[in-house]
This record gives sequence, structure tokens and C-alpha cells, in this order.
Amino acid sequence: MRQSKLFTKTKKEAPADEISKNAELLTRGGFIHKEMAGVYSYLPLGLRVLEKITEVVREEMNAVGGQELHMPALQDKTIWEKTDRWDDAKVDNWFKTHIKAGGETGLGITHEEPLTALMAEYVQSYKDLPFAVYQFQTKFRNEMRAKSGIMRGREFLMKDLYSFSKNKDEHDAYYEEVKAAYKKIYNRLGIGHLTYVTFASGGIFAPFSHEFQTISPAGEDTIYVDESKGIAINKEVYNDQVLADLGVEKSKLVEQRAVEVGNIFTLGTRFSEPLELAYTDEEGKRQNVFMGSYGIGVSRLMGTIVEVLSDDRGIIWPDSVAPFKVHILGLGDTEVVTRTATELYNEFTAQGIEALYDDRQEVSAGEKFADADLVGIPFRVVVSERSIKDGGYEVKKRSEEKGKIVSRAELLELLSVK
Amino acid sequence: MRQSKLFTKTKKEAPADEISKNAELLTRGGFIHKEMAGVYSYLPLGLRVLEKITEVVREEMNAVGGQELHMPALQDKTIWEKTDRWDDAKVDNWFKTHIKAGGETGLGITHEEPLTALMAEYVQSYKDLPFAVYQFQTKFRNEMRAKSGIMRGREFLMKDLYSFSKNKDEHDAYYEEVKAAYKKIYNRLGIGHLTYVTFASGGIFAPFSHEFQTISPAGEDTIYVDESKGIAINKEVYNDQVLADLGVEKSKLVEQRAVEVGNIFTLGTRFSEPLELAYTDEEGKRQNVFMGSYGIGVSRLMGTIVEVLSDDRGIIWPDSVAPFKVHILGLGDTEVVTRTATELYNEFTAQGIEALYDDRQEVSAGEKFADADLVGIPFRVVVSERSIKDGGYEVKKRSEEKGKIVSRAELLELLSVK
Repeated sequence: MRQSKLFTKTKKEAPADEISKNAELLTRGGFIHKEMAGVYSYLPLGLRVLEKITEVVREEMNAVGGQELHMPALQDKTIWEKTDRWDDAKVDNWFKTHIKAGGETGLGITHEEPLTALMAEYVQSYKDLPFAVYQFQTKFRNEMRAKSGIMRGREFLMKDLYSFSKNKDEHDAYYEEVKAAYKKIYNRLGIGHLTYVTFASGGIFAPFSHEFQTISPAGEDTIYVDESKGIAINKEVYNDQVLADLGVEKSKLVEQRAVEVGNIFTLGTRFSEPLELAYTDEEGKRQNVFMGSYGIGVSRLMGTIVEVLSDDRGIIWPDSVAPFKVHILGLGDTEVVTRTATELYNEFTAQGIEALYDDRQEVSAGEKFADADLVGIPFRVVVSERSIKDGGYEVKKRSEEKGKIVSRAELLELLSVK
Repeated sequence: MRQSKLFTKTKKEAPADEISKNAELLTRGGFIHKEMAGVYSYLPLGLRVLEKITEVVREEMNAVGGQELHMPALQDKTIWEKTDRWDDAKVDNWFKTHIKAGGETGLGITHEEPLTALMAEYVQSYKDLPFAVYQFQTKFRNEMRAKSGIMRGREFLMKDLYSFSKNKDEHDAYYEEVKAAYKKIYNRLGIGHLTYVTFASGGIFAPFSHEFQTISPAGEDTIYVDESKGIAINKEVYNDQVLADLGVEKSKLVEQRAVEVGNIFTLGTRFSEPLELAYTDEEGKRQNVFMGSYGIGVSRLMGTIVEVLSDDRGIIWPDSVAPFKVHILGLGDTEVVTRTATELYNEFTAQGIEALYDDRQEVSAGEKFADADLVGIPFRVVVSERSIKDGGYEVKKRSEEKGKIVSRAELLELLSVK
């Protein structure tokens, strides 16, 4: 894309009320725009990142056999009353509203209830199990505080996967598959080295749930990391009994702040029982379906990546989620520079290499460099009279300090889509 | 995909309260699930169709230079008060709700207001214009009646494009570009032959707006079609003066029921003025930005396609939006049939030909044929002992009555992805 056509512009300052690093950098870079506290628009650059994260997550959900669907935000309260999660005294973050034709509705905070009710129409026999479904869906939560940018919004994009199994053994095997898929996701998104499977509170059907926590001072959680084992324990379950159960030594644990970027739960029959999702087993007996749920906050992930992969000049996107792979900077408005840079841009486009081309006139080299650092595209290619004289293009990775001059052939080799 | 793995099953009957054809067929085929009146889930087959329609629309919006973004549902009421569209006495289909931390919010019925306010931060000079942005976004409208299936929902997916021009001339030229893009979209979606550019009420800034109306008894609008000119007039502006202005003869017009599948409006400065979206022109004078808006109800389009492209056995999807290109039916559970059908499925998958493979055991041939007709995938390929004896596979288009036996090579040639 030509930067001169992009309607967004970078800003020197973020709004004064944006105290989180992710909101500050993403706003200044033109990725997001705040509409209200905890409510953001995703502008062209930001939407590209969000879509790339979505696609990575989608691929891994498909790889564990998830079937994608999409449920609405508006909720039927009669279903939530059956599980006792409608009452504000029980669940305190509903947005509720009235239907003009009569009745009350609420905006989905999550989707266990309607999905369990839906499945009761499709599951009859043990032959229908197991399976799993997932969606990318906008959740609404009436949070009291919303000060963490896109890491805790009142409206946010979530991936939620739900599994339906015949029994706990079948569930446990699938749960481990999803756990492995989640690890792949964080690795692919470039934050795997900072992200720990974390033991958190379970419930009736399992001693623990598992969170995926990414080490960051911006996090709201406190965890205790055992680096040698590659696991962590959430403060909420941190006690001597748990340490003993997990075989962890207190002396090896390091306290850290962290962001919860995913969580997986064993739901058991918590929802299938009240909503009558049951099947007939091999002996003709009725059994409740055994369920699990697996969440990833997609927009929160985007915020987390910015929190942990940035420096004082701006964002450093991993290749997998960057809005573009390469940022071409044409420096100096001379004919030879414009022609060379434009030819390169056209060649990248023809080869499917996603490029942002800073073709803006009357913008200084200093401003272009500063903008490129702020926006954080993985590769920067400078075309200037000097680079042309030196034999080509100056290429530099955003994560490195020094660039080098390369020929067109070397550049295409470096950036070619595998 | 293997049909035995798909969690949905076809149904003989739709819920008794579903009176529209689109809801009946889509529910029976397992494409959608009704959560409440006017509120639907999109199940795996349905989501695939919705995504394909989205992709066609996206390609054509990109082709007219649209920049994709995504705005939230939750609305800042102070912005809507400036254009006098917050008051329920003025706009009567808001869903409104309360923010726990204080204040009132509503669910976006459309996005002119927040988008115009946002652009005021990015547009300063005539050099920043013109441009256009669009989104695929869930709208919420508190409709009194919701009886048309996914053609009029309380929650639905819409594509809305907005253009920002320096003046009316520049706007008019872009308006015609979008009109042409819309025609391409309906042609690509297989309903172009039934869809007419329809003159409808304009406003202060243009004598008419333009709707795209698809002829169907399920439509809520009445239009007068001039077949020879390829245009229509909405009943709301149908009078002798308008006929004279458009050079249309009354005797040539045919009254029709139709579904509004798109509309394009000249907004002029209706929103830019109250929300202070202005630019400095070449002479240094401040001017209000001249705007247009261009909507397509994506989920309504899906419903409309079903209304107009179906027969008494089920849906007849156009190739461009079908959930799969080909439906393989293995008939009879013999080893040779299963092996041949599975090999074919694997070959299609390897070649990127999207196939649904009805590998269900203990399901009769009659049921498989009926399900294939209901689900409406463009090509059906039957593998049976007889087809194998006759030299291959029986291929039939959903839109035709008779199939024919072809070899594997002929089949791959017929279905290959261009």
C-alpha cells in the first residue's frame, strides 16, 4: 500500500488519558482509535494485525479439528437463567437492554449457555461425539475499570473453542491437544519465550484450570514461575499443598507480573446438566456430555505483543502478525529515487510480498525514519540517492540496529514468500 | 470436509414459527440456528457462505480503493446528540444500555457519526482527500417485527463504505464508481439478472438515492421496473414528475415485489457540518467534507440468494458463494465404494477443490440425495458400485436434472480451480 493514500497519520502524542503502553503506541502509529474508555476502532494497519493474529489462531484451531461457527451477541435470558448466570448478583458485568417488541436481552459475555442449548438439538447418540467448535466473536463486558488499552476492553474480539466429549478420559486427551495447540500459537506469535502454562483454580471437575500467562509489567496477574520446569502457578492457588502436588520447590520460583493471554477449563457437566445436553451411550443409558472451554482474547493478544515487543522508538512486530512485511522508504523527491522505489514496490506487489511504501512527498527523512520505527514493520528498505550510488537498497530489520546495502536480487531473496 | 464429522444434521422440518423460505431452508440444511426472533447463529456451512459473500464484496471494495477498518458496536452518545440521532423520538430502533462506571451507551445501528468524528482527527488539508473506508460490522437494530429470517435481523452483518470528497463533483464521480462495483457484486453472486438499480428518495444534496433491488415475492418493497432501460423506481418516489425527469414511460413499467440488497446515498455535509469534519482548500479556505455512504446487508444477501435461487427440494447455491464446490456421495457401504470415494475426496483436497464428502454409514441413498438437494452444493458426484461399473463417477449440477458418467480425468478437468 502507498502510505500517501493511507488516511491515518502518525501522531507525536497519544491522548493524555491513555496510560498503557499498548494504547499509546497503537494510537500514535494509527493502528487503533479510542471511541470510549475500553472501546476501540481498528484502523487499516490495526485491522491487518488483528486479522493476522486471527488467522494464526484459526489455523491451529482447525488443526485440532475445531469446526468454526459464529454466534450472536444478543442473548436469550431464559437460557442463562437455567444456569443461574443471568442475575446481576451472580454475574456482574452484563450489558442488558430491552427488546422493543417485548422482553429483556443481554450482550454475550461468553457463549457456554447458548452453545450448549444449541448442541442439545444435534447430539443424540455416543456416535455424535466427540467434537469441538469455535468462533471469533465480539464479547461485551461491563467492566468497572478499562485502563489497559486493548488488553481489557468493554468490547473485544475473542476466540472461544468448546469441546464436547463422552466422558472425562476422552475430554482429558483433547484438553492436552488444545494445550499443545495454544503453545504453538504463542510461539508463532513471537511471545512463546515469555509465555508460561500456569496452574490456576479448577472446580468440581478438575483440580486446576490452565492459563497462558505472558510475563509483562503491564499484566494484572501475579504468577510464580519455575523456569526449569517451564511452568508457573497463579497466586490464587499458590500454597504449600499445591506446590507439593505439582512437585515444585518454593526456592526455585520467581514472582512475576503477567498478562493472561489464554485459558483452558474443564467444564465437565456444569452446563450440559442444566441445559439437558445428553447422549445415549453404547448400553442405551443417558449420559450428560462432558465439556471443556478454551479462550484466547485476540485483541488482548495484540496489545500484549505491543507491550512486550517494543522499544522506546515504537513497536517491533513479529513477522507473523506485522501489518506488512516490508516498509519501503523513498528518501528525497528526486526522479531517480521515486522511480527506483516505485519499481521496487511494484515488484514486491507482483510477487505477493506485502509492502507499505512511504511515497509521501515533502516529508523529511527524519520523520520517515521515526514513523517506520513507530509502526514497527519487520524490514525497512531505504531507497535514496546514496543507496543507489552504493549499489542498491539499504535493508534493516526493525529488531536490529544496523542495516546493509544489498542488490535487488539479494533483497528479493531475503523477503521472498516461502 | 467429511460429513460424518460435521456436527450439524439436516432436519425434515424447520421450527413452526419460521415462516420465511430462507429461514426454513437454511435451518433445515444446518446453515443457521435461531437464537431469538431476528437473531441467528451461523453454523459451519452457513459461516462458509457468509465468508464467501464477504470476500466477494471485499474484493470489489478494495478495487474502488476502499480502506478496510473496523468500528465498535458500543456508541458514544455525545457524538450522536450532535447530529440529533440519539433521541428515541428521532431514531426509534436503538438498543440502549448503561455503562456500570457511569453513563449510557447504545449499539451501533450504523456508523456515520463515530466515523465522521474520527476523520476530523486525520483530515486537515485538501491533500488528504478524497478517500473511502469500509468495514464488515455487526449492526444492531431494535426492529418491531422480525419475521423475514436472516433478511431482516435485530443483529446482522453489514458492509458499510463511506466516501470523503472535496466537493460534489468529486463525490459524484466516486458515487458512479461504487454503483458499478455494486453491479459487479450482484453479478458475481448470481443474482445480477434479478437486481435493478432503483431510484429512491434522495435528500438535500441529491434528488435521488439509489437502491439495488432484487425481484422476489419475499421482498418488503414495491418497485416499478423498466426492463428495456434496466432500471426501476421505488414506490416511495413513484409519481408523474419523477417519471418525466427520468424519461420513463408509465406503460412500460411493471410492478414488482423486491428485496433491497444495497443502497447508496449522497450524504453531502449532513454529518461533516455538525461533527466539524472540514479541510483547508487550495485557497486556504475552510470547507466541509462532502460525504457518501454505501451499504450492503451481507447476511440479508445470503437470505436473498436462498429466496431466489432454490426449488422445492432445497437451495441452489451459485458457485461463488457455495459452502463447498462439490458434494461427494458414497452410496452403499461396500469396500470398493468407500475406497474409491475416499480416494476422490483426498485428491480433491490435495488439488484445493473444496469438497463435502458424505461418508456417513447407515444412511440410505435416498436420504443422501435429499440432503444433497437441500444443502445445494453446485456439483454432486455419486460414487456407487454401478457408477464404478459404468466407468467412473456420476456427476450432476444441482441446477440441472440429469447427470452423466465421467472418468476421473474428466471430473478433475470439470472441477479444477482456475
